[in-house]
Amino acid sequence: MLGRKLVERLAREGALAGEAIEGLILADVVEPQAPPGDIPCERYAADVSQRGAEETLLAERPEVIYHLAAVVSGEAESDFDKGYRVNLDGTRNLFEAIRHAGHRPRVVFASSIAVYGQPFPDVIEDDQFLGPLTSYGTQKAIGELLLNDYTRKGFLDGIGLRLPTVAVRPGRPNAAASGFFSNIIREPLNGQEAVLPVPDDTRHWVCSPRSAVGFLVHAATVDGAAVGPRRTLSMPGVSVTVAEQLESLRRAGGDEAVARVRRERDETIAGMVGAWARAFDPQRALALGFRADDDFDAIVRAHVEDELTR
Amino acid sequence: MLGRKLVERLAREGALAGEAIEGLILADVVEPQAPPGDIPCERYAADVSQRGAEETLLAERPEVIYHLAAVVSGEAESDFDKGYRVNLDGTRNLFEAIRHAGHRPRVVFASSIAVYGQPFPDVIEDDQFLGPLTSYGTQKAIGELLLNDYTRKGFLDGIGLRLPTVAVRPGRPNAAASGFFSNIIREPLNGQEAVLPVPDDTRHWVCSPRSAVGFLVHAATVDGAAVGPRRTLSMPGVSVTVAEQLESLRRAGGDEAVARVRRERDETIAGMVGAWARAFDPQRALALGFRADDDFDAIVRAHVEDELTR
Repeated sequence: MLGRKLVERLAREGALAGEAIEGLILADVVEPQAPPGDIPCERYAADVSQRGAEETLLAERPEVIYHLAAVVSGEAESDFDKGYRVNLDGTRNLFEAIRHAGHRPRVVFASSIAVYGQPFPDVIEDDQFLGPLTSYGTQKAIGELLLNDYTRKGFLDGIGLRLPTVAVRPGRPNAAASGFFSNIIREPLNGQEAVLPVPDDTRHWVCSPRSAVGFLVHAATVDGAAVGPRRTLSMPGVSVTVAEQLESLRRAGGDEAVARVRRERDETIAGMVGAWARAFDPQRALALGFRADDDFDAIVRAHVEDELTR
Repeated sequence: MLGRKLVERLAREGALAGEAIEGLILADVVEPQAPPGDIPCERYAADVSQRGAEETLLAERPEVIYHLAAVVSGEAESDFDKGYRVNLDGTRNLFEAIRHAGHRPRVVFASSIAVYGQPFPDVIEDDQFLGPLTSYGTQKAIGELLLNDYTRKGFLDGIGLRLPTVAVRPGRPNAAASGFFSNIIREPLNGQEAVLPVPDDTRHWVCSPRSAVGFLVHAATVDGAAVGPRRTLSMPGVSVTVAEQLESLRRAGGDEAVARVRRERDETIAGMVGAWARAFDPQRALALGFRADDDFDAIVRAHVEDELTR
């Protein structure tokens, strides 16, 4: 979803980091769709966990490489081998191929707030210990360490972003444990019922898809020297409770929208979400010019503008 | 050196964690020597970076596995591929083989204070951010993350130890940047000259070989549940300046020993050592019963007892 939105924005603007985009090279496990417009675009179905896949992608020495892969949290937990093969080996294969290409591109690596596991403080600072409690979080934390080392050695110029949970996600409800953060806004605004599996006082750290894409675009422009040796930054976001989300929903869709949210506690989801990070103090990212949504009302407005008023 | 001393102690005591040792299985890149005594001992030359090497070592399902490997800091920095192949792939191969053996042994993993890079405080707490500035430190930090995840999944029962710099190392001077911390004690006590390449006020975190072996032995006995999900512990040690080391040398060997230390500044070594951690507050390890030397005089006494009075 983020990759698609990023590609659409790059195709629409035709420029990145102040330079015209000559073309896009898109790769995913299934062949990606071309964006609207007439920007030159190569598209590949590629498995980054297989050595050799990357050489084709790097043949034209792209100056900016986005690595948003890949196996999500739930699947990395249930299929241990696949998670390590794709998220760890795939990342390492890509970094190795970039090293051997030798042109030292900017590499933007999507990390995750899943690199943090309890215990952590209510507000997480930039120097918080990386203590993941999932295989996915472990693989992302290892990716951060590799990004630092490959950057330090001069093999690439990496910037990692620890993205907040992205809400409101467009499309159909999915099975991700975090899906309800989007569902309880998107579905009621669309006249549909949504299930809320956690208590109203559940607090979480979110950003809009529009902001997340903005972080990815801005990451192409950041001065690596100003970032220093620790190349991954916690992104800004909005710390919001479910109750506050529902008040934003009320302001956007009225009482009838809120009435479409049905409380149906799921202890498994409530337990998982209760262990997630609730808020950050992302000083480094703010100093480097990364900007998030103002508040959850702005996130709902972005959803309405981007998804419901086309 | 530590592996050899550990094996000698285990062979001498014939027991570990309150149980008699049935036998030892030793593996190194060259076939290790058997320890003195008649303890059953299999010895292998094995390359852990080659998948399959581990299955032989695990055939008898050892209950305690020590992983002290492998490529040291300087070589991991100069030979990037070898460092990752041995220190990362080798560790992962071993953990995978243990996972597939299925008997969930205690695995003691030697990490390093090289997982910490500047900036860090004068005294490093247990929750300090892992920010290595070398490939070796990166590989050790990744090993810590893998140890946590394999333990969390129930594939093994890991304990990692961030060892201080070990001094006084026995044997001949070596080329390691940290070698002088040992050389300036060992050589003068042996009637030989030693070179001091750093200022007298250089502070560092050290432990005796005897203490380091004691940590490894104690790690076999620690209750994993009490350690929690973050399985690697910073070990206690002695925070000492070179000037304090030299006063210990004076007490052990007199003014004539100290006179054998020649100051010859090496800016490269001084720069490297100046970026290393100087002191720790290892609360978790202390609470779990790990004990270091009382002070640097005790470290010098341990060296005299263990190496010079046989």
